[in-house]
Formats: sequence, structure tokens, C-alpha cells
Amino acid sequence: MPTSGGGGRRVRRIRVLFWVFAGLMLIGVTGERAAAPAVEASPAVAEAAAAQEHEAAAGEEVEEEAEGHTTARFFLILIAILVVGKLSGEAAERVGQPAVLGELIGGVIVGGSVLGIVPTAAGDPMAEIIHLFAEVGVVILLFEVGLETDLKEMFRVGPAAAAVAFVGVAAPFLLGAGYWYFTDPELGAHPPGVSLAKVAVFVGATLTATSVGITARVLTDLNQMRTKEARTIIGAAVIDDVLGLVMLALVVGLAAGAAVTVGTVTWALVKAVGFLVVAVVIGQFIGPHLFDFIDRLRVRGILLVSAFCFALLLAALADLSDSAMIIGSFAAGIILSSTNQFDLVVERIEPVADVFTPIFFVSVGAAVNVKLFLPWTADFNTGVLVIGGLLTGIAIIGKIISGWSVPWEKMNKLAVGVGMIPRGEVGLIFADIGRRGGLLSEPVFSAILIMVMVSTFITPPLLKVIFQRAEPTEMGGEPVAEPVASGGGSN
Amino acid sequence: MPTSGGGGRRVRRIRVLFWVFAGLMLIGVTGERAAAPAVEASPAVAEAAAAQEHEAAAGEEVEEEAEGHTTARFFLILIAILVVGKLSGEAAERVGQPAVLGELIGGVIVGGSVLGIVPTAAGDPMAEIIHLFAEVGVVILLFEVGLETDLKEMFRVGPAAAAVAFVGVAAPFLLGAGYWYFTDPELGAHPPGVSLAKVAVFVGATLTATSVGITARVLTDLNQMRTKEARTIIGAAVIDDVLGLVMLALVVGLAAGAAVTVGTVTWALVKAVGFLVVAVVIGQFIGPHLFDFIDRLRVRGILLVSAFCFALLLAALADLSDSAMIIGSFAAGIILSSTNQFDLVVERIEPVADVFTPIFFVSVGAAVNVKLFLPWTADFNTGVLVIGGLLTGIAIIGKIISGWSVPWEKMNKLAVGVGMIPRGEVGLIFADIGRRGGLLSEPVFSAILIMVMVSTFITPPLLKVIFQRAEPTEMGGEPVAEPVASGGGSN
Repeated sequence: MPTSGGGGRRVRRIRVLFWVFAGLMLIGVTGERAAAPAVEASPAVAEAAAAQEHEAAAGEEVEEEAEGHTTARFFLILIAILVVGKLSGEAAERVGQPAVLGELIGGVIVGGSVLGIVPTAAGDPMAEIIHLFAEVGVVILLFEVGLETDLKEMFRVGPAAAAVAFVGVAAPFLLGAGYWYFTDPELGAHPPGVSLAKVAVFVGATLTATSVGITARVLTDLNQMRTKEARTIIGAAVIDDVLGLVMLALVVGLAAGAAVTVGTVTWALVKAVGFLVVAVVIGQFIGPHLFDFIDRLRVRGILLVSAFCFALLLAALADLSDSAMIIGSFAAGIILSSTNQFDLVVERIEPVADVFTPIFFVSVGAAVNVKLFLPWTADFNTGVLVIGGLLTGIAIIGKIISGWSVPWEKMNKLAVGVGMIPRGEVGLIFADIGRRGGLLSEPVFSAILIMVMVSTFITPPLLKVIFQRAEPTEMGGEPVAEPVASGGGSN
Repeated sequence: MPTSGGGGRRVRRIRVLFWVFAGLMLIGVTGERAAAPAVEASPAVAEAAAAQEHEAAAGEEVEEEAEGHTTARFFLILIAILVVGKLSGEAAERVGQPAVLGELIGGVIVGGSVLGIVPTAAGDPMAEIIHLFAEVGVVILLFEVGLETDLKEMFRVGPAAAAVAFVGVAAPFLLGAGYWYFTDPELGAHPPGVSLAKVAVFVGATLTATSVGITARVLTDLNQMRTKEARTIIGAAVIDDVLGLVMLALVVGLAAGAAVTVGTVTWALVKAVGFLVVAVVIGQFIGPHLFDFIDRLRVRGILLVSAFCFALLLAALADLSDSAMIIGSFAAGIILSSTNQFDLVVERIEPVADVFTPIFFVSVGAAVNVKLFLPWTADFNTGVLVIGGLLTGIAIIGKIISGWSVPWEKMNKLAVGVGMIPRGEVGLIFADIGRRGGLLSEPVFSAILIMVMVSTFITPPLLKVIFQRAEPTEMGGEPVAEPVASGGGSN
């Protein structure tokens, strides 16, 4: 358990360290600004190149022109993300909070609305590249969670997780949509041609998401991944992702103005559930043989690279079959957890995860617009804050209720409910679709953003308090301390 | 030492494995093709968006439209690179060749001129992203080489390495430029407004490069990294990179039509040498303290991530100060090799290197146009093949000579000379600048490409033969077998 650190000498050292890193950061930022113009020129020139019907020579000229500095700028952004992520993670642990909270806050600081070091603007090619690194990060994170997941345990908590997931989707949806429909708190005018009912359904839908990534990291940071509560939360969050895909089909249909039929919703549900079941069932048969074969190869790094590719492959297949990437990589982890190479894979994927996963959490933080909270900025709006606060209340209550959806289970129901609270990136994706589809006005979008942000940021400290106060319920025979892949002491 | 594998049972297993992977690849390729149209649409739409003066909403719409499939496509390409890289690396080792040769050949197969799975066309955003991953790979590779490099040993081989480097630059340059100037084998017409002397100087310059990456990987694969020959080759290759930067300033000036003065060449030399010296000297003082501090932090992965960032930072700083990235990351490795955290860093950077470095070598292979060698294709040209063969001969002889530039040193001079042969990506960069600058006609460019390719591909098998025949010269007291970071047996 983290404790507040030792004597004055240690504090001095940390301070020196801080300034050394701050210096490095400064160099990074300065370098990045110096390099920026060369890169900014590129869309315009790329356009010209496109106009010339992709005349090869011109396109390559542009590429080479910006070349050296593009790579350097990319490296500096990556350094900024990782250094800020790790330092704020460390700071969070020192004040007794999970590291992921620090990474999120660090992300806000380097993000578009504060320092602007990490590009978040749509259309910026660098933002796209960072996004792909972040995607690899979340895929590896869920792969690690899957590795730690015993399928038998999952089946034991399965009914409870399913109940929690369904209540956790239904309660916020009904509360949110009902609140919106009956009070009509449209901030400003309705978007043209959009009925109140449609907006209400959309707002309700955005309240249903659960970011399994945030909760999984918190539980890993707290060394609680093997408790019954954690298993239930992860199981419910995965089911939530499946339901989320159905919701997504619903909201995308709504945003496009299409009729949403029972057929389309059912088909989305079948595809999402189907992928997980098919992948795990087939994988249980093929996985052990495949990795026994791979283990016999002798080239350096073959086992790690195979496991890494396996996680990416199932993520890509999940995406191409209209399921969620993270469901694919979670399934890959579950499959590998039953192979003989399990221990080696866990040990060797960890450094790769250390490099990639902070990129994801810092990116989520970087997408936050803090100006919404600052009265002296143009983005500030009291009405937005009030409605945002109300939505946040609904979001929190709606998920906490879900903990009590299994009254017969002997476990810490508050912990389960709180674990379902964070909306994270899933909430951001939903809200963004609504805004771009013209269903949500800018103020309503901002209010939803507040709900997503607050629900994401309060969960880590809340979970910590709850898990430390109450005695967690151990899964039969498994040790609660020292889960395999969390490795609190390994650096 | 690799041996050709066991009985029929093992062969059968390998064959099954091959088909399983082939199946996965097929899925990957099919998926990639299915996803391609959505992505291909994007430049046109991006152009439209640019025309609308970057109207935010439109830009984001485009981004989100292609979103899911972009990530899936990227994952599938990454999987193709890594799986093909590892399988062909394994195949190479099984026939007794270094794994890197397999990775290069695997790259050719998945590259633009054969299967086209790995995008290489300039202007393709996916090619840019893969390129950035490859850059991270080569940075980590040189960081690992630096980690294994003892500064004292480097000083011991320093004079010999410098002599080898200078002769290895001068001999191919003089031979190549002289051959071109006196025989004028211009394939087709001279490019307009370009004198024969200029082309001759440029051809000579492209013959001077050495790809330290290729040789370092071969020596690591062969477990020879700690021999005196390997130290001399690596030292000379690093000095060659410094000289290469001076050459690059020269050729870029030539290509731009500018006057190349003694002043500009000297300044380029001062900057390149200066960066390495300043980085290592300052780093020797700061490095150990910085990493002692970092070692006291407790957040997961902090040491690995710090080392990773340190390598990226020095690479970026090297680039921004007009030195070469790989010199920066090599310096970072040398600096970290004198810290107390050395062992842990070596151990934990290895899995990260396993994931990133094959991307670099497969990318180098993917850039090769095999159609140059195929009589039934439009790119085939007998004259190109003949001139390419002559240039290849000059390239090989010019570097082998360099091994005898230190007659007083007791070491395997042939091994040193052969180790300097591969032109790799450095040669590709030089040739590309000449083509785009209008100095090299398409046939001359192709002939130089052949020289780059052949010199790169023949070195791994040649080095293997030479190092296995002759007894390598051990560095005082250091064990030759089992170098720290090569870990042939670790997967």
C-alpha cells in the first residue's frame, strides 16, 4: 500500500528529479514549437499534390521535406506523454491515489486545452498517430486483464456480472432519458429538425457506457484484481461493452436519422455476443496447440511477438466483424491464460504494456477541455455546468444502483457499483457521434463531457477508499495479494 | 550456434505451424483489402475538407468515418510485418543464416513490389505511421548496441575504427566517382543541366554509406558483439554515420544546385562530431545520478519507460541539431551502460526491442523493387543490371579494403571490411535524394538501388562464414559467448 514518503532528504531528491525532468520537458516543448511550422505546411502541400492527381514526385518531395522533423516531433510528443504520465502517476501514488488518476490529470495538463503539447485536433496527422499508439495501449491493457482472467471464475461471477451490466445500462438510460424528456433542459435552441424525444434517447444512451479500461487499471494499481468484486466489475464492464455496441448501433442510427428497428438492434447484439463466444470457444482449442508450436521456435522474441500479434489480431477481427476491439484483445488474453506459455507471456508482455498503456490514459486526459470550468474563458457557461452536474449525479446513481442488482450475492455491492461509474473514452465516443450528427447542440455536448470527465476522475479515489475500508471478498483459494501481472514492485 | 533441425516430427510441426500462420495472414490480407476502400476515400475527402478552410466538423466526420477500419488496417499491417519478420527470421536461422537476413527477405515479400501488404508509397498515411514505428525500432536497436558498448573498449579500438571509417568512405567514393567520370555509363540521357562531374560525385557519395543497423544485428545474431572485430566495425560504422552526415550535406547541396564550400562541409562535421562528444561527456556525469533518482520512484515501469524516453530524447535532440538520430540513441545507450541500473534496463528493454526492431528491417526489405530483376516486368533493364553489378563490385571492394587500413592491428581484417559493406537504409536515403533532386536519372537510380540491395543482402551470410571460420579476437578478459543483450535463447 502506498504511504506518504520518508524524510527531508528524499523530498529534496524528488524535487531535484522534478526539475531535471522539467528541463527535459522544456527542451521538448521548445523543440516541438520550432519543428511545428515545417509540419503545418504539409496539409496545404498535400492538397496541392492531391490536385495534381497524386503525382508521385511531388508527394515524395513533401514527405522528405518534413521527414526529419516529423520523426523528431513525434519522439518529443511520445516522450512528453510518457514522462508526464509516469511522473503524475508517481505523484498520484505518493498522495495515496491510483497511478491511473495521475496519468489522466497529466494528460489534461499536456492536452489541447492547457499546454497543447499532445495534439488532439481532428485532422492533425500527428494526433492520428498518437491515437494509433493509444489504441495499441488499450488493446494490450485488456489483453493483460484477459490474461489474469480465469474463465471458470468468469463463469462463476457470470450471472451476477450480467445482472449488474443490465441494471447498469438500464438505470442510467431510463433516469437520463426521463429527466431530459420531462424537464427539457435544452441549453439554447433545439438543433433544427430534431425532436425532444430523440435528444432524450441520445442523452440516455451516452449515460450507459462503462470504461472497463479505467476500472481495470485502478483495480490493478490497488492489487485487487483477484477479488470477487473486481471479477464482477470486469465481467459486467465487458458485457457493458457488448451492450454498448448495441447502443452505438442505436445512436448511430438515430444520428443518421434512420429508423431503428428491433431487427437492427438484435443483429448488433448477436454480432457482439457472437464474436466473444466464438473467439473464446475456438481459441480454447487452437490456442494451446498454437503456442506449444510457437514455443518450439528459437528466434529471439518469438513468443512475445506472437502473443502481441495474437492480441492485435483478435482486436482487428473484432473490429472488422463490428464488435469492439477491446473485446477481441480481452478474448485473446483469456485464450492465452489457458496455455502452458502463460507465465512467460505475462512476464514479457509487461514491459511492452508499460510503454504503450500510459499513452492511452494520457490521451484520454488530453481530450478534456478544462476551459469549460474556467469562468474567465469563452467556453465557460453556467447553464452547462448545472446541467452537467445533474447528468453527473444521474450517471453516478444509475451505476451505483447496479451493485444491488444481485441482492443474493455476498459481496461489497457499493464497490461493484462504484467500479461501473467511469464513462471514459466510451462516453467520449458516444457524445462525439451525437455532436457531429447534429443531435446534440454544443452546450448539451459540453454538459455530457462534464459528466464523462467527472465520472472518470472520481472513480479511482472512490474505489481506493472503498476497497481499503471494507474487507474484499476473496475468490475461492486464490491469494488476493500479488496478482501475477500487476507487479507493483517491478520497475 | 544454429543447427539444421531434428526429425520428421519436428518438420511436420513446423509445417502445421506454417499453415496456421498462412491462414492468419490470409485473413489479414483479406481484411486489409476489404478495409482499403474506406481508407482510400480519405485523401479526396481530406482535400475537400482542406478546401473548406479546414472546417472542423467536416474534417472530424472524415476522421470518424474511416476511424474503426484505419485502426484495424494498421493492426493487420503490423501483424503481417511482425509475423512475416519472425517466421522468415526463424527460417533463416534454420538454414544457418542470421535472423536479420530472413527479416529483410520477408520484408521484400510483403513489400510494395510483391504482395503489397506493407504500404511503401510516398503520401500513404499508413506508410508514414509504419515508418515512425520503424524509426522507433532502429532507435531502440542502436540503444541496445550502445548499452553493450563499453566506452573504454571503444577508446581502445577508437584509432583503428577511425582509420577503417575514413578508408571505408574514401575508397568507395574515389573508385565510384572515378569509374563514373571516366567511363560515363549514363544510362540514357543526362538529366538536363547536370554535368557529368556532378553525377559522378553524387554516385561516389552514395557508395560511402554504411548501415550500422544491419551489421549490428548480424553480429548480435551471431553472438559476436564482444569481439574486437565487432567493436571496430561498430565504432567505424558510427564514425561513418558522422561522415555520412557530412556527405549528406554535400549531396543535398549538390542536389539543390548550391555551391558546396569547405565552410559548409566543416560546419556539418563539427555539428555531427560535436553532438556525440557533448552528449556522451555530459551524459557520463548526469546519467548515473538521474537514473539513481529514477530508481527510487515506485510507479510501475518507471525505469524502463525512463530509459526508453532517454533513448528517444537523445535521438530527437541529435536530429534537431542536424546530427543523425541513431547517433543520439547510440550515445544514450553508452551513457546508460555506466549506470547502476544497467542490468535491469537491458533486461526490460529487450521485449520492447523484440516488438519494434523487426518493423525496421522488414520496412527496409519492403522498399526493395524486385521487378528490377524480373525480365518479364516493365521495370527490367539489362543496362541497369550491368551497371548495378559494377557499382556493387566497387561498393564491396571499397569497403573490404578498409579492413586493411590498420595493418598494425592484430585482428581479422576481412571480417572488419565485410562488416562495413551493407549500405542499407542510409544508401536508400542518399539515392532517393539524388533522384528527387533531378541528379540521377531513373535508370541510374535503379542501378544504385541494386548496389544498395545486394550489399545489404550478402553481408549477413558472408559475416557468418567469416566469423565461424576464423577464431575471433577476444577483447581483454571479456567472455565472447553470451553477450548481455543478445539473448539468443530468450523468447
